[in-house]
Amino acid sequence: MPSGIGLVKTRRAVVFDGDRPLKLGSGAEVNRVEVAYETYGELNEERSNAVFICHALSGDAHAAGIHEGDDPDRPGWWDNIIGPGRPLDTDRLFVICANVLGGCSGTTGPSSTDPDTGRPYGLRFPLVQVRDLVTVHRALLAELGINRLLAAVGGSLGGMQVLQWVIDHPGEIDGALVIAASGRLSAQNIAFSAVAREAIMRDPDFNDGDWYDTGKRPDSGLGLARMIGHITYLSEQSMREKFGRRIQDAEVPRFGFDVDFQVESYLHYQGQSFVERFDANSYLYLGRVMDYFDPFRDPARVQQQIEAGDTSFLVLSFDSDWRFSTAHSKEIAAELRLAGAPVTFREIASTHGHDSFLFAIPEYHETVTGFIDRLASERGIGRESG
Amino acid sequence: MPSGIGLVKTRRAVVFDGDRPLKLGSGAEVNRVEVAYETYGELNEERSNAVFICHALSGDAHAAGIHEGDDPDRPGWWDNIIGPGRPLDTDRLFVICANVLGGCSGTTGPSSTDPDTGRPYGLRFPLVQVRDLVTVHRALLAELGINRLLAAVGGSLGGMQVLQWVIDHPGEIDGALVIAASGRLSAQNIAFSAVAREAIMRDPDFNDGDWYDTGKRPDSGLGLARMIGHITYLSEQSMREKFGRRIQDAEVPRFGFDVDFQVESYLHYQGQSFVERFDANSYLYLGRVMDYFDPFRDPARVQQQIEAGDTSFLVLSFDSDWRFSTAHSKEIAAELRLAGAPVTFREIASTHGHDSFLFAIPEYHETVTGFIDRLASERGIGRESG
Repeated sequence: MPSGIGLVKTRRAVVFDGDRPLKLGSGAEVNRVEVAYETYGELNEERSNAVFICHALSGDAHAAGIHEGDDPDRPGWWDNIIGPGRPLDTDRLFVICANVLGGCSGTTGPSSTDPDTGRPYGLRFPLVQVRDLVTVHRALLAELGINRLLAAVGGSLGGMQVLQWVIDHPGEIDGALVIAASGRLSAQNIAFSAVAREAIMRDPDFNDGDWYDTGKRPDSGLGLARMIGHITYLSEQSMREKFGRRIQDAEVPRFGFDVDFQVESYLHYQGQSFVERFDANSYLYLGRVMDYFDPFRDPARVQQQIEAGDTSFLVLSFDSDWRFSTAHSKEIAAELRLAGAPVTFREIASTHGHDSFLFAIPEYHETVTGFIDRLASERGIGRESG
Repeated sequence: MPSGIGLVKTRRAVVFDGDRPLKLGSGAEVNRVEVAYETYGELNEERSNAVFICHALSGDAHAAGIHEGDDPDRPGWWDNIIGPGRPLDTDRLFVICANVLGGCSGTTGPSSTDPDTGRPYGLRFPLVQVRDLVTVHRALLAELGINRLLAAVGGSLGGMQVLQWVIDHPGEIDGALVIAASGRLSAQNIAFSAVAREAIMRDPDFNDGDWYDTGKRPDSGLGLARMIGHITYLSEQSMREKFGRRIQDAEVPRFGFDVDFQVESYLHYQGQSFVERFDANSYLYLGRVMDYFDPFRDPARVQQQIEAGDTSFLVLSFDSDWRFSTAHSKEIAAELRLAGAPVTFREIASTHGHDSFLFAIPEYHETVTGFIDRLASERGIGRESG
């Protein structure tokens, strides 16, 4: 499916600086925060058609369209859902996606230069939480002159940001679309996160996060962390269908310790290509962001905040997702309902596991379209207007 | 539960040596093979009461009883199933357990000294397969004067050895007890195996498997591999019940990259304690043994072999096991039935995941007892005799 949007550019905005540092929930401060973001479609005069996309752990601001010089067959990571006539229809919506705080694709994070020292932060960057990611997104929206969103949409860590946003800042989001997310990581989720973190921190080139000037990078550990992650992103069934027990580039096994099975080759490739584009410290920070996420910890406060707002929720899960299974989404829906929120929950059939939220599954996209259509018509945003 | 057996000793036997090297299925040879084994109970005059235990990846010959000087509360790894009055009743059975070929607990493996060079083999040790592990067990039985087993019993890799044994050597085993095993690893199983192997091989102290004389060991990689493994040994439910999201030694999170959640602490401990007792090369070899296991590859041969023997099978799975789920056991049962074997299959309810086979779950132990009782009574081995 070719991109419906065509050429796009990543822009940057400095949203905290100088006398106005970013104050984190922990009390720590970040002096200067730059945000990388993209927008698709046009903001209408009433500024009522803005949809914010929150991305997942390894995502970035480039959600749709094509960057100049890039392969036209490799558009932004969520191009299939954003564009003219697509569920997030850019003929009538103004769609924004920004790289998260702590990331490594243009927004300030541990690989950014600390203005106080002139050197990359490394682990001197303060630990951030989901609420801080939201703080930065809101600052960007303020820059863009947007104070209310038609919708906030996100899968996985993206959905977690959407949840936190609604709970912390009532009255800013008409519709919250929380996809393949978790309201609280399970012990098994945290265990996977822990071994990925260990893989990075045990790499001798990690150098306590301070490798930037050493000429070495903890690519080995980061690649291994990504391999572990990938096992949890696919379902057992999709792995079986994709690879089975097939041998890579051969009919019979080679019997040795090198890569032999296709699934091994796939994981290697995923690990290798990831280290070209991702920072190991960002992986640690954003992994921890998820581990510590716990927005329903204080149900009385959640109820108060939900009542103060008027957000309606669509919570979606995929039946083959075992990273954040349907049980996680059902728990989110239950806690939101307990707090008095209007919630539609839907489990979508898909074999793609956690990664399903990235696929153009008809039932899934139709459900999103229906939700967005309803929000848009409530605001008088027609299919034709924009 | 105190051990019913009391003091035991690990013995050793040289089963291949000199003019009689071990010939592997691959065609390679191992000049000298020593086997570590233990026995419990007495072999009867008819030599008809022998039960062989095949152990899993990280097991050893010390299945039951207590070694002199050891903590009496820490008997052998399967003590709860072996002993007077237990399912493998040593009042009437002669139970044997031997460390596998390629292991590191007394049987020849990659950490053993190569008689040709006087140095540890490392990766010069030939790749072995399940059939080779069986060859060595059979050689040990020949040494002990046993040519037929009342039963062969094993969980996980142990069950895979039992399967291979029956298929390769008809007429040697009355009853085969295949527990929490797989007849063919899935793509996801192989993927987990691959990342564990990578964790070891990416450790700089691995030194291509030749670390024995360097004063360093790839403990970091082996510990990480074990942590990954442990996630797959427990069920999501047992992890939730054991650890939930509780913080280690504190009420509130410390918010950092060190171990904070209890589940992280548990995995660390498992990784640390494992490296004290296990050889990283053995982990690689035995992991690959499982990846390549494929005993049903040639159904016509399987049928011929099954028909040539007279083994009855008990195939058991545990409902919370997601490493080798019930689907794996059902597939084993189906392929055995297709080959004409008498098979009883049973799924046992348990929250302990793959590790369930090590627990004294009443329904599980009663099922094993029933199977062994029937075999024993067919051979005229009474509860009293022995």
